[in-house]
Amino acid sequence: MSEQDWATASAATIATSVSAGSVSARTIVSAALDRIGRIDPAVNAFTDVLADRALARADRLDTARGRGEAPGALAGVPFAVKNLFDIAGLPTRAGSLINRERAPAERDATLIARMEAAGAILVGALNMGEYAYDFTGENIHDGDTRNPHDLRHMSGGSSGGSGGAVAAGLVPLALASDTNGSIRVPSAFCGCFGLKPTYGRLSRAGSFPFVGSLDHLGPMARSTRDLALAYDAMQGPDPADPAIAGRATEPASPGLDEDMADLRIAVAGGYFARSGDVDVFAAVARVADALSCTRSVEIPEAARARASAYVITAAEGASLHLDRLRERAGEFDPAVRDRLIAGAMLPAPFVERAQRFRRWYRAAVLDLFREVDVILAPSTPYRAPRSGQATFVLDGVELPVRPNIGLFTQPISFIGLPVVAVPVRLDAGLPLGVQIIAAPWREDLALRVAHHLECAGIIRAPVANLA
Amino acid sequence: MSEQDWATASAATIATSVSAGSVSARTIVSAALDRIGRIDPAVNAFTDVLADRALARADRLDTARGRGEAPGALAGVPFAVKNLFDIAGLPTRAGSLINRERAPAERDATLIARMEAAGAILVGALNMGEYAYDFTGENIHDGDTRNPHDLRHMSGGSSGGSGGAVAAGLVPLALASDTNGSIRVPSAFCGCFGLKPTYGRLSRAGSFPFVGSLDHLGPMARSTRDLALAYDAMQGPDPADPAIAGRATEPASPGLDEDMADLRIAVAGGYFARSGDVDVFAAVARVADALSCTRSVEIPEAARARASAYVITAAEGASLHLDRLRERAGEFDPAVRDRLIAGAMLPAPFVERAQRFRRWYRAAVLDLFREVDVILAPSTPYRAPRSGQATFVLDGVELPVRPNIGLFTQPISFIGLPVVAVPVRLDAGLPLGVQIIAAPWREDLALRVAHHLECAGIIRAPVANLA
Repeated sequence: MSEQDWATASAATIATSVSAGSVSARTIVSAALDRIGRIDPAVNAFTDVLADRALARADRLDTARGRGEAPGALAGVPFAVKNLFDIAGLPTRAGSLINRERAPAERDATLIARMEAAGAILVGALNMGEYAYDFTGENIHDGDTRNPHDLRHMSGGSSGGSGGAVAAGLVPLALASDTNGSIRVPSAFCGCFGLKPTYGRLSRAGSFPFVGSLDHLGPMARSTRDLALAYDAMQGPDPADPAIAGRATEPASPGLDEDMADLRIAVAGGYFARSGDVDVFAAVARVADALSCTRSVEIPEAARARASAYVITAAEGASLHLDRLRERAGEFDPAVRDRLIAGAMLPAPFVERAQRFRRWYRAAVLDLFREVDVILAPSTPYRAPRSGQATFVLDGVELPVRPNIGLFTQPISFIGLPVVAVPVRLDAGLPLGVQIIAAPWREDLALRVAHHLECAGIIRAPVANLA
Repeated sequence: MSEQDWATASAATIATSVSAGSVSARTIVSAALDRIGRIDPAVNAFTDVLADRALARADRLDTARGRGEAPGALAGVPFAVKNLFDIAGLPTRAGSLINRERAPAERDATLIARMEAAGAILVGALNMGEYAYDFTGENIHDGDTRNPHDLRHMSGGSSGGSGGAVAAGLVPLALASDTNGSIRVPSAFCGCFGLKPTYGRLSRAGSFPFVGSLDHLGPMARSTRDLALAYDAMQGPDPADPAIAGRATEPASPGLDEDMADLRIAVAGGYFARSGDVDVFAAVARVADALSCTRSVEIPEAARARASAYVITAAEGASLHLDRLRERAGEFDPAVRDRLIAGAMLPAPFVERAQRFRRWYRAAVLDLFREVDVILAPSTPYRAPRSGQATFVLDGVELPVRPNIGLFTQPISFIGLPVVAVPVRLDAGLPLGVQIIAAPWREDLALRVAHHLECAGIIRAPVANLA
């Protein structure tokens, strides 16, 4: 392969080739760094490129392999992380200006360490919406991440840099976070795969939080195989994150090709079948058809779930940032600051009632999973809007873009269900996204369905045509 | 004994005599009903007298005893309950007007059923501050409970009827609730014994809540022996209260007379040694002297603990009553309503921070219990104020009475520590109260210390001179 080809190869291909000795990790990392240098100025996905660290690690890996050591399931695979992950030696900025004054992190986040333990090589940190309170990928401090498939459009957020880097072929894998949709939205807008695992599955130790009871970390990639490889490498107990603590590893990669005939699949109706552009429902229908799925289920009270997710997000987020809001309000992105200030004034009984509703809703949705294994729903109500676009029309009503992008993601993450967000290409236009939702701890089923669709050619995540 | 003597006898004496057949349960219950009829109009402790139910139960007990059945550790002992306990056939009013429209309770609260399973006989329901949001014993719907030792003074609240009924010798045992001090305050003002057990020790199933994370139920009595007998009768798992669920019974009565030489006892300094009338500290000193206690410990950040307890109380209480506040605000006691409305507007991050502080504070206080077994502190900053008294002077500052009565009780219940509130008579004036505080689940130690003091004549709870 040419250096250009290595730069956009899949993680699985790279790992196999590096393990076999047919290419060196240094070649892979050099190719990635070169492509980032050429392409990223247009996309603006990276806030930090760690060339020295990455090349040194590549050399160590090549040396170890030369000694006969097994280099791991992700041998030589370049990856990058949303800049809310701790990276030893860097302040963890979480998309903000204020955090740049923090002391440099003393060690890498747990998930970075696990990726590297499997042979992957960290090449940089990625742009994101300030403090992850964002669905657009816009950032007033670092500039917006642009959509690699059309630079005039939003990447989606808050993990915009992660979506941009993967879709632009700068890295085969990126790590991101999802509180209300921040993995699934950029996966939809940028046309890549994203896994938002079950709440409590992957350790958040060494990441900058947003809403403790809603924050998830997970991978983004251009194939289900790569997604599953990263997911498997990152699983396992971590006492440093109390929400995950003792959860054992349950590898999903080995089952990707298993038979699907026994799976009961349904399309989410009601709330999830209205208030969106016709194309997003066409994308869901294409996926459902390919799965011969004719069943529909109604997730009850999804609108209240979304409202409750908003209330809890605003209040918990405000609580986290209260001192910064008091002392340094002028240094926030105004769009983030104003929502946090509103959250700081939310009456406590609203939050208490939202929490009480959450318990009811969780039980009601878990009941649905007695009858179905996997539920399909759109990822976003629209394809990626234009950068700076303020409104779109839903059900004939003109609505602000920013708060409504997460319409279909919020009711799912609210109760921590695992989702694989998959990319659908209906036409030559921008990609569309579909959520493949499973019961808690059944990431394996959502990944298996996504893999089946990918093998059937229904979903795919080509590298954007930028070079 | 005369009927008058039986009416004011201890639970232990009654149970022994009824078990031995030297007096019938009917005689005991009749004596209690007669005394209630004569004395209660002056005290206003009862809101419901259940003569028919009590006499029928007494007759069943006498018949069973005649057949040779063992009548239980509380055989024939009359008791009454704060009117937030469910009593089959009555609406559970919880001191309010609004609740009187509720459907009658279908069954008795768990603790009533356990008391009766031990042979005790429910004779009535007791007055309380509206929805338990009260420290005075005043109630605009049912009238104030008056202090049996001086009818011009407050009984203390919110379990004012429980304190009044016990101190007036109307029943040897009453059940009550304590969220921020509602057992310990009337115990201090009325000069009786009160046990606020560890949070999660006694089932709250079948009681009207106030603040789920702070509500405790417990007994009040005129002796530690009676207190321990009631406590032991009520312990044990109850799946109907998730906070208590599987906690096993740990009887405290058998150890009341055990040696105390090994116990490490300290007086709470700092916050708990200022902001009170000189007499309340004299009462603590008398108890400490009698225990040869010279040690002092400082409970850290007690003022913040009290503030946090207030914040959580107002917000959780408001959440519970939100619909009633919206629809029927005019039917609340204005003093309760206005605080609940204020609670409904408390910013959610305040509550979140109070909860976070609570975790820190709990750990810090538990650390103290590595060095001491029992901590002594005043129950209230003053003796019982006059009814309607609006202010008192603390540290030279004139302060409102109502919100400051719980100054010394709130930081303790905030983290669910068990307390025996004991009565001290320094002079011929109104009684004073001291809290004997132990580590979680060590009610036995607090009861043992109280019993030792009672046997030494340092504390006592004589029936008020009313007849």
